Amino acid sequence: MNIKPLADRVVIKMVETEETTKSGIILTGSAKEKPQVAEVVAVGPGKVKDGTLVKPEVKVGDKVLTNKYAGTEVKMDGVEYTILGEDDILAIVE
Amino acid sequence: MNIKPLADRVVIKMVETEETTKSGIILTGSAKEKPQVAEVVAVGPGKVKDGTLVKPEVKVGDKVLTNKYAGTEVKMDGVEYTILGEDDILAIVE
Amino acid sequence: MNIKPLADRVVIKMVETEETTKSGIILTGSAKEKPQVAEVVAVGPGKVKDGTLVKPEVKVGDKVLTNKYAGTEVKMDGVEYTILGEDDILAIVE
Amino acid sequence: MNIKPLADRVVIKMVETEETTKSGIILTGSAKEKPQVAEVVAVGPGKVKDGTLVKPEVKVGDKVLTNKYAGTEVKMDGVEYTILGEDDILAIVE
Amino acid sequence: MNIKPLADRVVIKMVETEETTKSGIILTGSAKEKPQVAEVVAVGPGKVKDGTLVKPEVKVGDKVLTNKYAGTEVKMDGVEYTILGEDDILAIVE
Amino acid sequence: MNIKPLADRVVIKMVETEETTKSGIILTGSAKEKPQVAEVVAVGPGKVKDGTLVKPEVKVGDKVLTNKYAGTEVKMDGVEYTILGEDDILAIVE
Amino acid sequence: MNIKPLADRVVIKMVETEETTKSGIILTGSAKEKPQVAEVVAVGPGKVKDGTLVKPEVKVGDKVLTNKYAGTEVKMDGVEYTILGEDDILAIVE
Repeated sequence: MNIKPLADRVVIKMVETEETTKSGIILTGSAKEKPQVAEVVAVGPGKVKDGTLVKPEVKVGDKVLTNKYAGTEVKMDGVEYTILGEDDILAIVE
Repeated sequence: MNIKPLADRVVIKMVETEETTKSGIILTGSAKEKPQVAEVVAVGPGKVKDGTLVKPEVKVGDKVLTNKYAGTEVKMDGVEYTILGEDDILAIVE
Repeated sequence: MNIKPLADRVVIKMVETEETTKSGIILTGSAKEKPQVAEVVAVGPGKVKDGTLVKPEVKVGDKVLTNKYAGTEVKMDGVEYTILGEDDILAIVE
Repeated sequence: MNIKPLADRVVIKMVETEETTKSGIILTGSAKEKPQVAEVVAVGPGKVKDGTLVKPEVKVGDKVLTNKYAGTEVKMDGVEYTILGEDDILAIVE
Repeated sequence: MNIKPLADRVVIKMVETEETTKSGIILTGSAKEKPQVAEVVAVGPGKVKDGTLVKPEVKVGDKVLTNKYAGTEVKMDGVEYTILGEDDILAIVE
Repeated sequence: MNIKPLADRVVIKMVETEETTKSGIILTGSAKEKPQVAEVVAVGPGKVKDGTLVKPEVKVGDKVLTNKYAGTEVKMDGVEYTILGEDDILAIVE
Repeated sequence: MNIKPLADRVVIKMVETEETTKSGIILTGSAKEKPQVAEVVAVGPGKVKDGTLVKPEVKVGDKVLTNKYAGTEVKMDGVEYTILGEDDILAIVE
């Protein structure tokens, strides 16, 4: 299944970040604080403002920081995604 | 009976998705979580913005993901429909 | 008495729909769920947007579905009407 | 004293409607439900929208239906008036 | 001290209206309901809308009716004034 | 330290007004009601509206009346300032 | 890791200000009131308004005062940052 967001919406997927604690143990997923970094998996065509189509600034593959609680969560083929407006994406992380 | 939505409104119908559990049992409808995927059954003519008619991006037959709780539910000839603005449709699923 | 709605307002009257239950009894009015279908009995001249008069899409006699709780109820000559903005009319039913 | 409303405001006065009950008794004022019909007693010059003065659609003497609770009540020379924006006038009754 | 309101703001002062009761007693101020009529004591230069300065419709000396609770009360040299936007002035009383 | 407000923001400082009571005692600060008059200590460059920079109407040194509770309080070098938008300044006092 | 804010967003980091108390003790961090001054560490490209890109007024290195509680806090590589819209930056401190 494939999600094609409308307008200026973006589909993101939370990133499983590996993290080594000070004692050397590697933590993933629920064993540590929920990571705030997400990966963009789909981008809408953009929104028309004052007669011109404004394309989203983010692209597929970007790592992004988002507003907490923004967007709608959907589960497709066992994977959890969040669909949110581009306005709720705060920054790209490199 | 036939529903003709006004402006940029869209009529959708929840999709009965068959789902096979790990033990092989097929679940439909209320025996599992309410499916979030809906099918578009009617589309309004669009909304005038800055002097031009903007037609909805979705078309009849599209499978869509919507904002939870968005729209008004109506029951026609025993079938439940939801009428909602196109802004509450997040993405098309293929 | 005659109600002439202003701007883009529409006057509607709930439709008494006959309904036959499975056991053959015909229900009208309060004996069943309040019907959501209403008939348009008067339409305002429209609203000026960006310098041009935009006439309502609905016309007298149309059967419509509306937002629940929208509008103001008035009783004239013993009949209950609802006056509401055209934006609260979701669809035409045919 | 004379009230001259500003902009698109309208001054209305509730109408004392005579009503004959089934038993033949004539009810006025507080002995029955508050009448919703009001008479327009003064109209403002209108509001400037996009550079042009838009005059109110109602005129002095019109019988109107209004949004309940809309406007500010004032008492002048013993008479109660309501000053409200033209947007809160729903329809003219003839 | 002198108050010069900014933009479309207006400074008003409540009017002490003499009122003779039916029994002939003259009531002033707190012995009766707070009067709603106020006098305009200062008017701002106006607000720029769409590139042109729109001057307030009221002038110093006008008796006005205002939205209850609108504006900010200030006490200058022992006198209570209310500073409010022109939009909160409903009508001129003559 | 020096505060340079952005856009149409203004920095004000409450004015310590001397006040002589009827019995001749001079009150300052907390011994009487908090004074509402403030002095402008810094003014932002203004805000762009419809393509042109609109400069604030107030200037450094002006005595002003403001909306109660408006703005953000900051303490710099032991002095309390309030930074607020120009819209929250109601009037200039002379 | 590097944070690149989108649109008119700004990334700030709270400033650890040294402060000498009257008794001569130097206080840092939690031993005194949380400092309100923050340093700008990244600035977005700006926001399009009426067809032209409006760049933020602040630049990297500026010391700024912000609205309390504004923005979203993120922790990157052990450092806490706040991402907020430029509108929530009140003033530059020099």
